Amino acid sequence: MRRAMAVNLRPPTELQPVPGIRIGTAVAGIRKKDRRDLVVIECARGTRAAAVFTQNRFCAAPVLVAREHLAAAKPRALVINTGFANAGTGEAGRQDAVAICEALAQEIGTSATEVLPFSTGVIGERLPVDRVTAGLPNCVATLDESGWADAAVGIMTTDTRPKGSSRRGQIAGVGVTVTGIAKGAGMICPDMATMLSFVATDALVSQAALDALVRSAARTSFNRITVDGDTSTNDSCVLLATGRARNPVIDAPEGESYELLHTLVAGVFTELAQAIIRDAEGATKFITIEVCGGHDEDECVEVARTIAHSPLVKTAFFASDPNWGRILAAVGRARIARLDVGAVAIYINGVCIARGGARAPEYTEAQGRMAMAQAEITLRVDLGTGPATARVWTSDLSHEYIQINAEYRT
Amino acid sequence: MRRAMAVNLRPPTELQPVPGIRIGTAVAGIRKKDRRDLVVIECARGTRAAAVFTQNRFCAAPVLVAREHLAAAKPRALVINTGFANAGTGEAGRQDAVAICEALAQEIGTSATEVLPFSTGVIGERLPVDRVTAGLPNCVATLDESGWADAAVGIMTTDTRPKGSSRRGQIAGVGVTVTGIAKGAGMICPDMATMLSFVATDALVSQAALDALVRSAARTSFNRITVDGDTSTNDSCVLLATGRARNPVIDAPEGESYELLHTLVAGVFTELAQAIIRDAEGATKFITIEVCGGHDEDECVEVARTIAHSPLVKTAFFASDPNWGRILAAVGRARIARLDVGAVAIYINGVCIARGGARAPEYTEAQGRMAMAQAEITLRVDLGTGPATARVWTSDLSHEYIQINAEYRT
Repeated sequence: MRRAMAVNLRPPTELQPVPGIRIGTAVAGIRKKDRRDLVVIECARGTRAAAVFTQNRFCAAPVLVAREHLAAAKPRALVINTGFANAGTGEAGRQDAVAICEALAQEIGTSATEVLPFSTGVIGERLPVDRVTAGLPNCVATLDESGWADAAVGIMTTDTRPKGSSRRGQIAGVGVTVTGIAKGAGMICPDMATMLSFVATDALVSQAALDALVRSAARTSFNRITVDGDTSTNDSCVLLATGRARNPVIDAPEGESYELLHTLVAGVFTELAQAIIRDAEGATKFITIEVCGGHDEDECVEVARTIAHSPLVKTAFFASDPNWGRILAAVGRARIARLDVGAVAIYINGVCIARGGARAPEYTEAQGRMAMAQAEITLRVDLGTGPATARVWTSDLSHEYIQINAEYRT
Repeated sequence: MRRAMAVNLRPPTELQPVPGIRIGTAVAGIRKKDRRDLVVIECARGTRAAAVFTQNRFCAAPVLVAREHLAAAKPRALVINTGFANAGTGEAGRQDAVAICEALAQEIGTSATEVLPFSTGVIGERLPVDRVTAGLPNCVATLDESGWADAAVGIMTTDTRPKGSSRRGQIAGVGVTVTGIAKGAGMICPDMATMLSFVATDALVSQAALDALVRSAARTSFNRITVDGDTSTNDSCVLLATGRARNPVIDAPEGESYELLHTLVAGVFTELAQAIIRDAEGATKFITIEVCGGHDEDECVEVARTIAHSPLVKTAFFASDPNWGRILAAVGRARIARLDVGAVAIYINGVCIARGGARAPEYTEAQGRMAMAQAEITLRVDLGTGPATARVWTSDLSHEYIQINAEYRT
């Protein structure tokens, strides 16, 4: 099916090369013909990597292998295929992932444990290893520092737009770059990361600081988006640091240089995460759910996610219907310990709809309809009981979502 | 919007009168014209009542009032309106519910605390009390033991079919009757009961036994269905026992007579709960999710509900697509303490699709498509780690669900 427009998702800004990173792509015919479906990201010797992966217990074979390889060695290359997720494939799938690492290792003259594999696509079917390995020489032949834009296209599945982001900044007087790409449009409710995201910087960072950085930045970006509540089997987010900027090493997750790098990386992560929601399957609205006034952040996240996952709230957004009773009902069933229903207030794009647990006296349906008709909506729920706050981004639930997911494998 | 056919939902079998219960209905024009929208259920003096209500913190005003009245006195009458749910209406809504109880009490010569109020419909708008009270004399004028079928129609909202069930049996040599009605098609994920269900028996039962009975029967019927995961603000399930059968009193939740009555009541509850799923908004399939092999029942229920709430699994059912990877992914993200992914097996209408956490070697896509094309589907997930089992009923997610909920208030 033809997908409609993504919600205010512009083409990626020019993706800045990251010294030490080269990228190559190929049309390997893995599941469909004439589609860029294979990507290799090569890292210079000495590049550090940190990653977060899906918390789904049925994690895919490449996730298992990437975790092991990451623990064993610094990576020299990442290989990413679309078409098949290589999840729910048991021991055979695991051997397939290892075979691909071995083929690429041979091609670039390194060892298999220095290669990290990633897959996305249909779950439960074997990956055609021969087609992947046949495409690897083409990837290697096209390796180039300027390959980011092609790679952003090469990892797409139901995405309608490539997703990329770059930031530049100064750390201790040295210019550094952060560039990343991501894909994903459905089965999106990352628990540690998004479907697939690869971000690189040339900053020099210790392993401890890099590990802290990827977790911290993912927590408030990829881990705060949801399309359908369905946490994927393949979610992976990798942050590479080549060290080529030769800044004074950032050796701990604290201090001014770390905070500067954190701002750059979190900026890229958040832009990529929001791009996934803007391009969510069937999305006609980009919705920011802000929950404030909670006892702690977890409580705010739980309330925001309960609203974001409600099919009734999501169809009301699709219909531009200010049906705030559905929002109230979602807040009321959220799994939190305490809720003071008389303290709750609800705002849509600044219009106060409910206060004290009931409709605001000055509210008019016309105001609500106008607010809900916007393509960008901020829903603010004030729990009125504490200082904590959290933000989650989501999409609406439309006919197109049903259509896409009813036809996904056809 | 015109609703499609409910899934294999036949008209209610003839609803048997319950001695001691009289029912009257009226067309009161509460929200729409020419619609039977007001029901009174009158109970003979001495009738005991037990009830379970929604666990949503934003419970509706009538739920608050019904809980209080039930604690204060044995009910002489129930009054049920559709059109407006009287939820999210604050203190004013509470006064509206009390005013309706007072009006009916005056009409039938009892006190307001002996009346239980129930409402269903749009959340967040005030109930037009004057229209409700104006309709009460018509309800009282039509009170009759044979009023069950009209009442089943009178409590409908987005339902396309009235829902009722009767069972008869012998307890200690005495014939007893259990008859009930229910409504609900969307915002269905009852946490203690369903949207609205009213069941009566003429059996003589102590209050303690009746309280145990309603909880036990609701636990494995209404509390095991879900359409959209959205627990309503108004869920109420009331079980009335008039005692007119004059059987030896069932005075505790144990023993042969209690078990016999439990079988009858649970039979009616389950038939009503399943009728709600068969008539779920947009439903084209009736899906039974059986999870076995769990450590305990809670674990099985959690896995079953995670599958039942997955938009991806629900759209696959709609499309008759045996996309079992989505089922596997839902099992993998369920919030349970332990999962042995290598022990999981999945069956659709008896066809083994996955075993040992991966695709079954003998499985063919053609078998899966044939199984998924049925209107009645049993999805069985064997966790392979323990003796526990649980069953949840749900519907698929179709274009019609979106359409209905995008247009609900128009």
